[in-house]
Amino acid sequence: MTIPVGIVGFRGYSGAELIGILEKHPQVEPVLLEHRDAEDHPRPVGHAGPRRVKFAPDTVQAEGLAVVFLATPADVSLELTPALLKSGAKVIDLSGAFRLGTVENYRRWYNEPHHQPDLLAEAVYGLPEFYRSRIPAARLISNPGCYPTAANLAIKPLVDAGVIVREAGIVCDAKSGVSGAGRKPSLKTSFCEVTENFSVYSVLNHRHVPEVLRTSGLEENELSFTAQLLPIHRGILETIYFRARNVESAAGLLAIYQKAYAQEPFVRLYAPGQAPDLHAVAHTNFCDIGVHFDPVTGRAVVIAAIDNLGKGAAGQAVQNMNLLLGFPETAGLL
Amino acid sequence: MTIPVGIVGFRGYSGAELIGILEKHPQVEPVLLEHRDAEDHPRPVGHAGPRRVKFAPDTVQAEGLAVVFLATPADVSLELTPALLKSGAKVIDLSGAFRLGTVENYRRWYNEPHHQPDLLAEAVYGLPEFYRSRIPAARLISNPGCYPTAANLAIKPLVDAGVIVREAGIVCDAKSGVSGAGRKPSLKTSFCEVTENFSVYSVLNHRHVPEVLRTSGLEENELSFTAQLLPIHRGILETIYFRARNVESAAGLLAIYQKAYAQEPFVRLYAPGQAPDLHAVAHTNFCDIGVHFDPVTGRAVVIAAIDNLGKGAAGQAVQNMNLLLGFPETAGLL
Amino acid sequence: MTIPVGIVGFRGYSGAELIGILEKHPQVEPVLLEHRDAEDHPRPVGHAGPRRVKFAPDTVQAEGLAVVFLATPADVSLELTPALLKSGAKVIDLSGAFRLGTVENYRRWYNEPHHQPDLLAEAVYGLPEFYRSRIPAARLISNPGCYPTAANLAIKPLVDAGVIVREAGIVCDAKSGVSGAGRKPSLKTSFCEVTENFSVYSVLNHRHVPEVLRTSGLEENELSFTAQLLPIHRGILETIYFRARNVESAAGLLAIYQKAYAQEPFVRLYAPGQAPDLHAVAHTNFCDIGVHFDPVTGRAVVIAAIDNLGKGAAGQAVQNMNLLLGFPETAGLL
Amino acid sequence: MTIPVGIVGFRGYSGAELIGILEKHPQVEPVLLEHRDAEDHPRPVGHAGPRRVKFAPDTVQAEGLAVVFLATPADVSLELTPALLKSGAKVIDLSGAFRLGTVENYRRWYNEPHHQPDLLAEAVYGLPEFYRSRIPAARLISNPGCYPTAANLAIKPLVDAGVIVREAGIVCDAKSGVSGAGRKPSLKTSFCEVTENFSVYSVLNHRHVPEVLRTSGLEENELSFTAQLLPIHRGILETIYFRARNVESAAGLLAIYQKAYAQEPFVRLYAPGQAPDLHAVAHTNFCDIGVHFDPVTGRAVVIAAIDNLGKGAAGQAVQNMNLLLGFPETAGLL
Repeated sequence: MTIPVGIVGFRGYSGAELIGILEKHPQVEPVLLEHRDAEDHPRPVGHAGPRRVKFAPDTVQAEGLAVVFLATPADVSLELTPALLKSGAKVIDLSGAFRLGTVENYRRWYNEPHHQPDLLAEAVYGLPEFYRSRIPAARLISNPGCYPTAANLAIKPLVDAGVIVREAGIVCDAKSGVSGAGRKPSLKTSFCEVTENFSVYSVLNHRHVPEVLRTSGLEENELSFTAQLLPIHRGILETIYFRARNVESAAGLLAIYQKAYAQEPFVRLYAPGQAPDLHAVAHTNFCDIGVHFDPVTGRAVVIAAIDNLGKGAAGQAVQNMNLLLGFPETAGLL
Repeated sequence: MTIPVGIVGFRGYSGAELIGILEKHPQVEPVLLEHRDAEDHPRPVGHAGPRRVKFAPDTVQAEGLAVVFLATPADVSLELTPALLKSGAKVIDLSGAFRLGTVENYRRWYNEPHHQPDLLAEAVYGLPEFYRSRIPAARLISNPGCYPTAANLAIKPLVDAGVIVREAGIVCDAKSGVSGAGRKPSLKTSFCEVTENFSVYSVLNHRHVPEVLRTSGLEENELSFTAQLLPIHRGILETIYFRARNVESAAGLLAIYQKAYAQEPFVRLYAPGQAPDLHAVAHTNFCDIGVHFDPVTGRAVVIAAIDNLGKGAAGQAVQNMNLLLGFPETAGLL
Repeated sequence: MTIPVGIVGFRGYSGAELIGILEKHPQVEPVLLEHRDAEDHPRPVGHAGPRRVKFAPDTVQAEGLAVVFLATPADVSLELTPALLKSGAKVIDLSGAFRLGTVENYRRWYNEPHHQPDLLAEAVYGLPEFYRSRIPAARLISNPGCYPTAANLAIKPLVDAGVIVREAGIVCDAKSGVSGAGRKPSLKTSFCEVTENFSVYSVLNHRHVPEVLRTSGLEENELSFTAQLLPIHRGILETIYFRARNVESAAGLLAIYQKAYAQEPFVRLYAPGQAPDLHAVAHTNFCDIGVHFDPVTGRAVVIAAIDNLGKGAAGQAVQNMNLLLGFPETAGLL
Repeated sequence: MTIPVGIVGFRGYSGAELIGILEKHPQVEPVLLEHRDAEDHPRPVGHAGPRRVKFAPDTVQAEGLAVVFLATPADVSLELTPALLKSGAKVIDLSGAFRLGTVENYRRWYNEPHHQPDLLAEAVYGLPEFYRSRIPAARLISNPGCYPTAANLAIKPLVDAGVIVREAGIVCDAKSGVSGAGRKPSLKTSFCEVTENFSVYSVLNHRHVPEVLRTSGLEENELSFTAQLLPIHRGILETIYFRARNVESAAGLLAIYQKAYAQEPFVRLYAPGQAPDLHAVAHTNFCDIGVHFDPVTGRAVVIAAIDNLGKGAAGQAVQNMNLLLGFPETAGLL
């Protein structure tokens, strides 16, 4: 027996990734909720994919959906979430609609008003490695942004261990594949603009920055974050620089992560001097971390890599679903 | 002293390529004619590029433009051409607006009515290798499509030489980089849809087919043409298959081309068994051709490669301009 | 309980794909057989992957291997196969060593002598759609080449149905991603040579041609085959042209395939006028087929797409293993 | 009348780029010096390219070469340079052989002995923006590395202006296209390893670091430099982070560069908040720089972009040749 779970926004890249993961998940069955018209790819005759139903007020109960994933823009998530919760579904929202805690924070970074302060306060930030205990009882999971997932997994253990010379600042130079920008056509994500190119955007003011600050414990003036566009489909690699204290070797840095993630199934660590590349994490729910350190000067470099559609979006959403529904946390994800 | 020449549609990929070529051309100066708003890329301070003026009824005379390039969609070319000609400019149109000779042909392949039969009849098809003598005196040059440029240069000498077994048909399997689809964002040309992919479109009914038929001398039922999208920015490679007669070796096929193109500066030929790739022609106005032949069975394969933005669009347009204005045909193009 | 199966050549692209499939397979456990030194990628600490053992004469019995996959060059397969068979393992060879039936054929297309005519004669060509009944009892499976897998699945039903005008010839214009060339570094597969490029190779004389002839029933002089290199990692798309008779519509062509593949789990068909692209088959064991047809002239175009590492290599090898070991044919492959 | 100049290593990517630039240069004629056998690409019949001669002891005098470019590995440059200088040619070496000033420095960063301390001391570092006055009289120009060219042009004016809070350190996160690794095939630069990937290498210990230190004036413990591989052919983008003092706005940072580069033809600056991408500099000799600044916290980000084969190698080499031979500095480069 499988449990039906709904997906709104299933044509986007995160939505399509959700379908792929959920179709292989042993305990659930995805149901595609048609909310807005969009272009479908041709499909083979007789291979229609998961069941599709029109999204309507009574869909959750008619279909018996335990969980609904919103792989939608923030404004759509803001619109749909209250009614979904009222209908009894648990909601896992992949947008930024409920990540920032307060309406003031949302207005500052998203340049839009937010009229649901209660839900903002109620939403649990779905980064299991740090908020696992709060997830099973939540009604509304706010799935983390792709950049902050890698950044927080790399930075928070360092902050907690007190090894960053914080007055020198910490740099997170982040690079993402194009799918992070979504499927809606735009000049910036057109093939000819991206191929054989590399570009920066949102220097110092990316809307994912406050997610890093909230979770890692860094202060805003301590973090310099730049987002950059790689000519690839999927993957995020972040190169993180800081001055270290109270640590004497790369092995010492590695030990901090080993302790923090000893029980974590989705964080993998590399031997000192080695580092993950994006092939290592493509199509997975892993966050891979490698450390480099110069003991003479204290300069440290940490590399964190994820698949932005995996641990950075759909994979993590399924990890949250597993926790919500009482399944093994790794079900469907290894 | 340089002569000013205008470009409408200078933000598109063909338009940008025109700017690049014309800025290095020793005898002309490009003037960018603002016709519709569109997004510009950031430019360095103090490097604004060529002069820009609003496109208006009196622009041609106010700026003293000898030639205006229309790097615009067909509907815009249809709208602008009559007034430009009336104002005394010569027009080189890079769209399909004036390529097909008759309104019936246009309606069939472009699915649109065409109300300028006189201009259709008057327009000279700007493939200098075959229509050179008619170009200098023309008012309106219809610059060939990218696919037909390579196809006609590869096929017409074979038709003229009578070496194709025409009842067996001829196949032109054509592959193009994404810039051939223009700069307007669309799902089909989005990075994530194109990268690590390859796809067919317009099988047997591409609107460039009639251009090949008109020039090469083939009949419609003799030609099977498929257009395909390569995950690259620029370049067209066409693999052409036919049964040969009256020829005994690859060298014999090569000799046909050598005779046809002995005086041509922009057609290059390869030794039997060798073939061009797309790097060979990138950023050039060359059409490169290689031949393969099995004398036992008469199976022949011809490879033709161009840069779709070079010989397939802007390069050829400048070649036509050189002929129109009495410059050396290769000026600015080698 | 899982059954151990061995992989020689596990560092190559087909070998790595085999590991990935077999690790998820519910009934087997891959064992990596170290045969030659080669460079490994860095791996996360504590994630060593499948067990590795030195390949030695007694490995098959010591490890209890029921099947050994050879993801090796043809010369290595020729060297290892006799001893493996003698030790009691069944062998699935992914190279071309045993595909061509006779030593004469091998010498002609591989330019090398072949000293095992008995094994050549004994080997079963592992294309289950056409040779399924012979596979379970075989000792030695010769896994088909990537190009022939797509070509035969597309062409053989047409030959059997008698709809090809064979005197006009049939064209198979084939395009492959770079992984088809293997992992050994070479100039031709270097990133800078391939990116933003497209090139032909082995025009009319590719060593995969005889595999197409043997299975499809075409004569050599009827088939024109060109191999071409796409700037992508994985995927093969073949555009196949012929003149059709005894068929009146694209639906009629489609019906031929529907009848031929009604029971096949790994062949998918598209509605007339639609076609697969390479994203449709990436990371799958499917062969997707689409048909186009002009009833007026009889020109037909068939598109066949596979993942060269999936149905074109490792996926098909596992399909063969499933048949050999009596598992459900789709186990581990959907 | 053109002057003959020689190229050793003309088949490599920098060498090929040199040919392309020099063929369009109005005052010189490239002569290709065959030193070692390597694979050539097919070329069209009758388009052999520049003249080729065997490299021999008397080549410089026999051909009347005023300058010889060495686009060779460091060990080959070390071997050839003394004899070339003795024969009267000026040498522009594109390798790292003569960049580091002392044999100790060379041994530390290249892990090799160096037996020509006099030439190391004599060589002029060919970064015209900072060493222009010394170039015309030099015999031996050591063309800068690609990474250091961008890094020094971005960093040195900031150091000179005293606006970096040096105790907080400066981060240079550098990304390069694959051609920077040369044309010799290797697993790391194979297409399948690079496409859809991104990876770090030489974290904190890249051999280009000492070039940055020598020219910029930074101390080793102040600079954290990471090299990273982009899945593109050409281009370097460096994202540079520091804490600023004595400056109040992005415009203030920009003013520092405007003053430093007021007379420089090959450095272009962007308005505050804008930044170059790699398309902006592809196939040019420009270094483009953009600045970002948060006046509240003093966090600053500078983006510097070059074409690694242009300003990062061949373009800069020709710029040096122009200075050596008394040509206009921009000849052949705009």
